[in-house]
Amino acid sequence: MRILVCNDDGISAKGLRALVEVAKEFGEVVVVAPDRPQSGMGHAVSIGVPLRLYASHLFGSDVSAWACSGTPADCVKLATGVLRLRPDLLLSGINHGANFSISAFYSGTLSAAVEGAFEHIPSIGFSLLNYSMEADFSAAQAIVREVILMYLAHPFPPEVPLNVNIPNLPLSEIQGIRLVRQAKGRFVEQFEERIDPYGQPYYWMVGRFESEDTGPDTDLWALQRGYVSICPLLTDLTAYSHLHHWASVER
Amino acid sequence: MRILVCNDDGISAKGLRALVEVAKEFGEVVVVAPDRPQSGMGHAVSIGVPLRLYASHLFGSDVSAWACSGTPADCVKLATGVLRLRPDLLLSGINHGANFSISAFYSGTLSAAVEGAFEHIPSIGFSLLNYSMEADFSAAQAIVREVILMYLAHPFPPEVPLNVNIPNLPLSEIQGIRLVRQAKGRFVEQFEERIDPYGQPYYWMVGRFESEDTGPDTDLWALQRGYVSICPLLTDLTAYSHLHHWASVER
Repeated sequence: MRILVCNDDGISAKGLRALVEVAKEFGEVVVVAPDRPQSGMGHAVSIGVPLRLYASHLFGSDVSAWACSGTPADCVKLATGVLRLRPDLLLSGINHGANFSISAFYSGTLSAAVEGAFEHIPSIGFSLLNYSMEADFSAAQAIVREVILMYLAHPFPPEVPLNVNIPNLPLSEIQGIRLVRQAKGRFVEQFEERIDPYGQPYYWMVGRFESEDTGPDTDLWALQRGYVSICPLLTDLTAYSHLHHWASVER
Repeated sequence: MRILVCNDDGISAKGLRALVEVAKEFGEVVVVAPDRPQSGMGHAVSIGVPLRLYASHLFGSDVSAWACSGTPADCVKLATGVLRLRPDLLLSGINHGANFSISAFYSGTLSAAVEGAFEHIPSIGFSLLNYSMEADFSAAQAIVREVILMYLAHPFPPEVPLNVNIPNLPLSEIQGIRLVRQAKGRFVEQFEERIDPYGQPYYWMVGRFESEDTGPDTDLWALQRGYVSICPLLTDLTAYSHLHHWASVER
């Protein structure tokens, strides 16, 4: 099995290394990851900007690895379009930080998985609920292994990428694994205004997630109770329940 | 009525000016747009980077306008978080170029509308199927006016933003307006390799959309036949039909 490994924290991130170590147990691994952190890049792609690929020896001689000058989605496009990879599985992460609820829209980690799904590659994005660049990924690695085994035994259609969030707990305290829906919620942004040395204002965005959902079947609910949350994602954004909303006024 | 107008082609784009002109017929307009083109930025947000807002006089004395150093989604966040706007309607565009099918994932224009939906603001993104910076927006303006009137008469819930694509045709040749689903398809990327003056390769991405959908109820189908396509969008990415896929193996 050939496995493409991507992320959004960049090729030198500890979470990527942790994911590569587990991926190697399952097959031949190729890494294509951004050359610098790309958190919050959503599904951005580089338009009007040429892209670079640099061979990397960060993962030793048994792993082909490439640093890419673009976004996480660009990494997948270059992997298939320039390196001509046809991976059997795409793994993205392990992200340093949570990607539950609407974070799925902002996440570079998940955009790589969604881009894989566009290419009909079975794709899974992993995130650990710890934002530290020095986070301990040992429990997360055991979960990644378990999820991959479950996936291989009961695969999802390749057009349904998975969003896996892992609580920041020792393995013995993780309660289980739950398939869940995305919690409804929003980020309440607070902007800290500062004045630069030239007297001009600038703003630091500080987002705080606010749940609007008390349902017991959400990613947020599962994570708060120590479960790994797995949310299957759509690649069709149509709000089907509203397709006939204007039936009387269409012309 | 207070209307927030955003885009992704930047504050000096002709499509933004065209949208502002129509928006002014409906109420008080505030523009918050990127200070430079941000096409293909998806739902990127600026993390770890401070943001700037510059007052702009591009739209005359009756329109408050701000250029923002961030992404289209950042523009909406700054409009609500720094400028403290509570708009009754958010309009994004008019984009110079198409945003049908999975382009909804890549589009900065639509990310502003989706961000508005996160904030419970009724939001509509408009795109004209003409990529030229000198495109003629006169027919598109008539369509924008008609869509806003339909929307005000029969509003969608604020959590359902609209993706409106307008064929590049004279108004008399536009066949009508259709609510449609997102066509299934993908971008087949071709990368043109060039060698820089230092002997190193770089790649230009050239995407070509390939439909995988022959259905008569898609945005692509409608646009190919001269209709305006309107696709209501989701802000919940959960693939509900696959939530029980692992019911037997969850733990």
